[in-house]
Amino acid sequence: MQSRIKLVENMQFVGTADSGHAVVMDAPSSVGGTNAGSKPSELLLMALGGCSGMDVISILRKKKQDVTGFEIKVGGEPGEGHPKGFTEMHIEYIITGRNIDEEAVKRAIELSLQKYCLVGLTLGKGVKITDSYRIVREA
Amino acid sequence: MQSRIKLVENMQFVGTADSGHAVVMDAPSSVGGTNAGSKPSELLLMALGGCSGMDVISILRKKKQDVTGFEIKVGGEPGEGHPKGFTEMHIEYIITGRNIDEEAVKRAIELSLQKYCLVGLTLGKGVKITDSYRIVREA
Repeated sequence: MQSRIKLVENMQFVGTADSGHAVVMDAPSSVGGTNAGSKPSELLLMALGGCSGMDVISILRKKKQDVTGFEIKVGGEPGEGHPKGFTEMHIEYIITGRNIDEEAVKRAIELSLQKYCLVGLTLGKGVKITDSYRIVREA
Repeated sequence: MQSRIKLVENMQFVGTADSGHAVVMDAPSSVGGTNAGSKPSELLLMALGGCSGMDVISILRKKKQDVTGFEIKVGGEPGEGHPKGFTEMHIEYIITGRNIDEEAVKRAIELSLQKYCLVGLTLGKGVKITDSYRIVREA
């Protein structure tokens, strides 16, 4: 796997990868950018949420769960001082649907974070990842 | 810091974060997606390259280096079997410019990976990150 990240101007970069899709990255004005794209650290959190979200929705669909909406929130606090780095991240899974089986949700999250999600397994080597879920009942 | 990742349809998700920028993610057709967005694991590599790239270009500009082009390649191989995850990543920095000081480049990369780059410091807790650079002379 390889990604190319090319400087456009100022602090703006465009990343492209094997899938052919491009992502614009930029820094906020406080550090000399113009906020004309995602911050790299935001992409890190999105990558974790998207990766695990794909696993969880796939598993829930295989288990014939009637999911009508699905959202993931990923939070993290960068450590203090230098050298720093995220030490903890939290993922909240919010599943909306009809007659959702709580056990299926718990198992799907467990399978994703412990077995399938490449981004989670990579980050989990050095970062403590905690999770929670919320099931929203739709009539 | 928090990111929200919302299911659109099938395996497509849209991530948004504090900066307000959104990124589309999708899975390849081999795993049930339609390849209508970046793969989460690609975002991980792009985040690393963008983060470190911003540091390196900032430092080189402060050191009055005449950089006319800058590209970063980030590669990684997911480990085999389950559980897996990236165990190694490599960043190549390709700097094009006039009279670029090699020592300044080496120092900028070192400062980024060891001190400033939040994504690199986070991944570096569990992944071996190696780096190399190439200076392309412009007349």
